[in-house]
Amino acid sequence: MAQVIADRRDVDFVLHEQLEVEALSKHEKFAEFNRKTVDLIVSEARNLAIKEMLPTFKLGDEEGCTFDKGVVRVPESFHKLHGLFMEGEWIAMCDDPEWGGQGMPATVALAAKNYFNGANFPFTLNTLLTHGAGKLVETFGTDEQKQLFLKKIYSGEWGGTMLLTEPEAGSDVGALTTTAVQNDDGTYSITGSKIFISSGETDLCENIIHPVLARIEGAPAGTSGISLFLVPKVWVNDDGSLGEFNDVVCTGIEHKMGIHGSATCSLTLGGKGQCRGTLLGEVNKGMRAMFVMMNEARLDVGMQALGCASASFMNALNYARERVQGRHLQAAGKDAPPVPIIQHPDVRRMLLTMKAYTEGIRSIMYYTGFCEDMIRVSGDAQEKARWQGLIDVLIPIAKGYASDRAFDVCNMGVQMFGGYGYTREYPQEQLLRDCKITHIYEGTNGIQAMDLVGRKLGLNQGQAFRDLLDEMNKTAADVKEISGLEPMASTLETVIERLEEASLFMAKTARSEKMMTAFAAAYPFMEVTGDVVMAWMLLWRAGAAARALEGGAKKKDLAFYDGQIKSARFFIHSLLPVTLGKIGAILAGDGAVVEIAEDAFGSK
Amino acid sequence: MAQVIADRRDVDFVLHEQLEVEALSKHEKFAEFNRKTVDLIVSEARNLAIKEMLPTFKLGDEEGCTFDKGVVRVPESFHKLHGLFMEGEWIAMCDDPEWGGQGMPATVALAAKNYFNGANFPFTLNTLLTHGAGKLVETFGTDEQKQLFLKKIYSGEWGGTMLLTEPEAGSDVGALTTTAVQNDDGTYSITGSKIFISSGETDLCENIIHPVLARIEGAPAGTSGISLFLVPKVWVNDDGSLGEFNDVVCTGIEHKMGIHGSATCSLTLGGKGQCRGTLLGEVNKGMRAMFVMMNEARLDVGMQALGCASASFMNALNYARERVQGRHLQAAGKDAPPVPIIQHPDVRRMLLTMKAYTEGIRSIMYYTGFCEDMIRVSGDAQEKARWQGLIDVLIPIAKGYASDRAFDVCNMGVQMFGGYGYTREYPQEQLLRDCKITHIYEGTNGIQAMDLVGRKLGLNQGQAFRDLLDEMNKTAADVKEISGLEPMASTLETVIERLEEASLFMAKTARSEKMMTAFAAAYPFMEVTGDVVMAWMLLWRAGAAARALEGGAKKKDLAFYDGQIKSARFFIHSLLPVTLGKIGAILAGDGAVVEIAEDAFGSK
Repeated sequence: MAQVIADRRDVDFVLHEQLEVEALSKHEKFAEFNRKTVDLIVSEARNLAIKEMLPTFKLGDEEGCTFDKGVVRVPESFHKLHGLFMEGEWIAMCDDPEWGGQGMPATVALAAKNYFNGANFPFTLNTLLTHGAGKLVETFGTDEQKQLFLKKIYSGEWGGTMLLTEPEAGSDVGALTTTAVQNDDGTYSITGSKIFISSGETDLCENIIHPVLARIEGAPAGTSGISLFLVPKVWVNDDGSLGEFNDVVCTGIEHKMGIHGSATCSLTLGGKGQCRGTLLGEVNKGMRAMFVMMNEARLDVGMQALGCASASFMNALNYARERVQGRHLQAAGKDAPPVPIIQHPDVRRMLLTMKAYTEGIRSIMYYTGFCEDMIRVSGDAQEKARWQGLIDVLIPIAKGYASDRAFDVCNMGVQMFGGYGYTREYPQEQLLRDCKITHIYEGTNGIQAMDLVGRKLGLNQGQAFRDLLDEMNKTAADVKEISGLEPMASTLETVIERLEEASLFMAKTARSEKMMTAFAAAYPFMEVTGDVVMAWMLLWRAGAAARALEGGAKKKDLAFYDGQIKSARFFIHSLLPVTLGKIGAILAGDGAVVEIAEDAFGSK
Repeated sequence: MAQVIADRRDVDFVLHEQLEVEALSKHEKFAEFNRKTVDLIVSEARNLAIKEMLPTFKLGDEEGCTFDKGVVRVPESFHKLHGLFMEGEWIAMCDDPEWGGQGMPATVALAAKNYFNGANFPFTLNTLLTHGAGKLVETFGTDEQKQLFLKKIYSGEWGGTMLLTEPEAGSDVGALTTTAVQNDDGTYSITGSKIFISSGETDLCENIIHPVLARIEGAPAGTSGISLFLVPKVWVNDDGSLGEFNDVVCTGIEHKMGIHGSATCSLTLGGKGQCRGTLLGEVNKGMRAMFVMMNEARLDVGMQALGCASASFMNALNYARERVQGRHLQAAGKDAPPVPIIQHPDVRRMLLTMKAYTEGIRSIMYYTGFCEDMIRVSGDAQEKARWQGLIDVLIPIAKGYASDRAFDVCNMGVQMFGGYGYTREYPQEQLLRDCKITHIYEGTNGIQAMDLVGRKLGLNQGQAFRDLLDEMNKTAADVKEISGLEPMASTLETVIERLEEASLFMAKTARSEKMMTAFAAAYPFMEVTGDVVMAWMLLWRAGAAARALEGGAKKKDLAFYDGQIKSARFFIHSLLPVTLGKIGAILAGDGAVVEIAEDAFGSK
């Protein structure tokens, strides 16, 4: 059977030949995770994804979620899936076994998620947020909070959410108006309305634990006056038994372009004045807690985008090999037989673009997970800080840039099927619709670009970004030694140099009186940084493939390795010149975007 | 009230200040269409679009079309609209008054269509195909066929379609298998199955006239053996009265990503051996007839894309002026009040991109219509041929490039609304879904790129493409004289030169043994050609605006004119450098796309 969701050979290639993840098992923390175990985990995730999740993909979209008098029902088929997820303990893959986690390397967990997200990410969204809520409890909770909630959450028995957005507080979280008043027993009474809450209400679990951002009466305005609270849907008594329903009411769900299997809820807290919660972490430190969780959440969104891209690419590749239409361009005579469309040059261009993007994004994601693992095994504080800096710089790329390119892949994925791609008969249009949300939630991609320029570029006095450039240059220097790859490596070096120039220009301009112009170029800057990171990953892959070929690869691997070199060549020679053009435009620093008067955008 | 669908000021600007459409009324053919009449037509179209069509946009999407035992029902609200369309005689705007047409200039008709398409293009799709079928009858029909069908079609009393695609004959029309056998009475018996037929069955009209591509028994294989037939749903007797139902059965409709208001039908012809049709035009010349209609049909698809982009941009602009979120980037202190998001640099970047694309596409479209008008008023065969060449070269841009950029606009249009953009509460997500079909039908955008490189580049020994370059250079030279616009004009000249270089490279390579590499670059070549055409249009606009400012413009127009200059500046200084990068990549001519082995795209 043809590969679906993700090319297993490519997943293994990144794990074992690019990142050499087995080396992590030399560390006590990951001692169990030798190659055999890693492969077993990926195989199990893949099986579950293909056999159980993929068949629910279209069902979930068509059935959608329903809302009736405060009750939300998820697609019927999701109930069985949720059971299988709990059974396989897939919710807390990397977490502390003490609390029910599996303690596996993040890199490996991402490979598993690649399959889950590609099979049906609207389903996984539910468990994702559950895990995020658990992580908040694990990181900031008191012993009591951990004892009461954590195992139930990490197992999936109870759901978890994140109550952040309000109608007038979207990208500007600091504008929120939900309030908290301390009660005599130390709990807080919470009052407010929250929107866009994924899985805010569900019939999958008997209880849901809502981390809620709210402002304690009298706290400062803006983000520095926000605290975090744990608000259970059903009150949990001190002995762990369930008490009364808390005053949290779902008032409706959104009708959306995609991710129909995920209920996006509006919740009213304390409508009857009876909503209770407990403080999670410190007073007025809610935003800081959110920021701790943000990297993981944003990486997960990038993974959802990768899932869509990866599935769309696999479907398109299989279709292009089977669909017979039109003669070969160089066919002799009009009577030449029609050929599979993979033989047409424009189809090949789309396929190679989809391949390079999908594989490049895969490497970016797994590498970011790998950096997390390196923090966990490193004994040296400076080393840890270095890896953390790399993660921080890569997150806007892994979320913002990657989700944009994934959407491009899904768009081509529709195009590859012609008229059929626009119909619901094939999964391509749903993947495009589902993928679109990844540009928006967990901070729009515009916010990611601001984050890159406003926070990450200057992080540790610019050291984090320089470390990224160093890593890229190291790979380029290494691959330059490989016969045949020198031109690609040199080109990448040139482009890295130009990126550095652009980064210095951006950092300087962002602190000058022309700061508006700098931030108007934040998005293009995120795009060029992403392009260079993508090229780096593809060159790294090409280097590993070339060395494998030099070392006498198995016959069955020859085509795969050649494909790695071709992807890099295509990206570096055909797409990086466009990046250079974009860097040129950034450096030119034209101010039209800033200078145009509001009235001049168009008539009122 | 804020502008919706399309900025009227901008529509008028293109008609009267860029293209000076009133000059057409000096010619007898368009004598009636003085400025006052033109403005009246646009106002009427705009009123109909805003008051009657726009309210059906969401209704049509949600209600969709239904299919039950061969009967297709369109959204209920479309019936009234169809009546209004017939009443206003909006179906055959440019056609011969002898047959019920309005005889107006194409440029003016496009302005009207801009509003219709932006209000609800899935509705207009029905009348569009009706017109197309009528045009085929007018162009290729016998007197008898015209008498029988034409007025009924042009009035909208009867519908029209185009039966081209079959399951195994999509992009490769020549592979079709529908057959025609001549009967003793001169009619033909048609047998075959057609798919993806817009409005193939409908409850809007009592009869539908289907132009059908089929192969007469014994005709050559491929496109040279295809003939065109007129197959009415209900047979039309010689006296014009309706006879029996013809053997044309709708077997189902597609469930699609968007354009739910337009029924995409599968039709079986002659399932009972009783489907009759008459030959339209000459035997085996069916494809040639199709090609005659293709320019109009492709321009119409571009217009649909413009409609989506234009509406999405207007919505986004209005939202950005109203939605208050976040503080100004240069605000002093944390207590600064929140501002409308139009003040944020990344929002302005999106808006200016949307503006430049939308307005540039508008000019490309109207200009292509203007070229048609120039053919109609020109007495000189050489002049006519020159205008026709310009149209031929521009069509892949107006359909392929423009629909891609329109989709980008609609994508940003969702993004501008944040989470709300993903919900059905706002029109943005539907515009994105609807817009996607414009990449696919009437020849996928990949086919457009092939058309540009394979047919149009070499048209009239390359003269048509050179004429386009000349027109662009003329504008650049003209605008260069205007104080302040010289740098933009010079930049455009440089880029035109590079485009010419790329075009010569492409033409040469496409005829060499590296032809596969050339066609693998056809899509990027279409993109860069489109970019340069877009820059040309924006510079032309900026020139007209600058001259109006020099001539002492009215105060109420100052912002508008300044906006024209800013759009051009933004596009030329911030986006054209990217085009230059892409041209560089085309000229580098890397062969990875062609060389990669089929197996190397991924595991099987």
